[in-house]
Amino acid sequence: MMGVLYGIGVGPGDSKQLTLKAVEAIKEADVICLPKADKDKCRAYQIALGAVPELRYKKILSYEFEMTKDEAALEEMHKDFYQKYKALVKEGYNIGFLTIGDPTIYSTFGYIMKLAKADGIEVEIINGITSFCGSAAASGILLCEGEEDVHIISGQKDIDEALKLSGTKVIMKSGKQVAKIKEKLLALENQGEISVWAVADCGMETEQIFRGAMMIPDDSKYMLTIIVKEC
Amino acid sequence: MMGVLYGIGVGPGDSKQLTLKAVEAIKEADVICLPKADKDKCRAYQIALGAVPELRYKKILSYEFEMTKDEAALEEMHKDFYQKYKALVKEGYNIGFLTIGDPTIYSTFGYIMKLAKADGIEVEIINGITSFCGSAAASGILLCEGEEDVHIISGQKDIDEALKLSGTKVIMKSGKQVAKIKEKLLALENQGEISVWAVADCGMETEQIFRGAMMIPDDSKYMLTIIVKEC
Repeated sequence: MMGVLYGIGVGPGDSKQLTLKAVEAIKEADVICLPKADKDKCRAYQIALGAVPELRYKKILSYEFEMTKDEAALEEMHKDFYQKYKALVKEGYNIGFLTIGDPTIYSTFGYIMKLAKADGIEVEIINGITSFCGSAAASGILLCEGEEDVHIISGQKDIDEALKLSGTKVIMKSGKQVAKIKEKLLALENQGEISVWAVADCGMETEQIFRGAMMIPDDSKYMLTIIVKEC
Repeated sequence: MMGVLYGIGVGPGDSKQLTLKAVEAIKEADVICLPKADKDKCRAYQIALGAVPELRYKKILSYEFEMTKDEAALEEMHKDFYQKYKALVKEGYNIGFLTIGDPTIYSTFGYIMKLAKADGIEVEIINGITSFCGSAAASGILLCEGEEDVHIISGQKDIDEALKLSGTKVIMKSGKQVAKIKEKLLALENQGEISVWAVADCGMETEQIFRGAMMIPDDSKYMLTIIVKEC
């Protein structure tokens, strides 16, 4: 019998934010897969370890999912790693692929899931707390109430149009664009149009909460979620 | 010493989707507050009970948060209920207010939180899995990948403009508007522009997954999350 491929969300950073279901899935998986070669530097692994100490004794398969804008290289890498997971699933092993936040939101697991589904492999997504919900909670604010909309946008592209949308804007994955985004937010903030919060390393010991665009750090070494509310 | 007001998200429906932190908060709270008068009919209570059986023996404070479009009546009701929570917090009790999904997304807790913050009461938000992440997982789909945006929109207003946004659209709280929304989705689906999934009672025993706008039930008795993806 074939195994199952589980995509397990471990939440943004606090080990206590794992769900009971995620804890169970990690405990029951035969093999745990990580999106980083060095498990000690893998944030998803560290978060999960805090909730499931016996993870230390599990069989781990860790590959470096490098971030690149080279679409062809990315596809090649995903296919290559997927072949290894597939071989295990076909042998009957249940595999748990760990991912920060929730597997349905900008996760590396998404690529693997698509390849697995195309091969008829059974896939199950196990949800995690998203970093935007975690960041709003850490900031003590709501993302939406009444009839407000929320827009989750990738900071990897031009966000000018998105910033004009009504409701709350969440900017994720800003990475190297962060200084440019900060500049745009500062301008809108100075005009009294928006209020800005940002959370780096949400839920981790290194968590920092920034109030106002000016406070957002210019460098991209942080996992950063920016929340923009209308004034 | 004053107590703390916890807003505890219990996720969309599956008791196993509570986080470890939510379980702990429920266990430690002196009083549990529910947004429905009859706890046996309160979905948040039933979800939490599945994860924390001892909740049955906790002191419960349950008021009927009626849904009304009358803003003044709504405000009066929230203020009235809040006064009762406030009295307990001032006496030093820790209060855990249960809410479906996540407290930062369209939750009743938001109103109470604002009133408490204005009074200088300590508030802590404890995240839950959102119904849109839960519904995507149940449908076996991703909400976003690469540079795609996700728009969380309230189905209580005119959604024509929102449906034109690029990326994934999640329609929540459609309620009595569901038949009208379904009609709009059917038209776009027939033009081959969108793909539609909907999940009723996500995570509950009564969960139903609908593929395609045509399959969405016309009546509003369900807790329904609609996911619209671009083709």
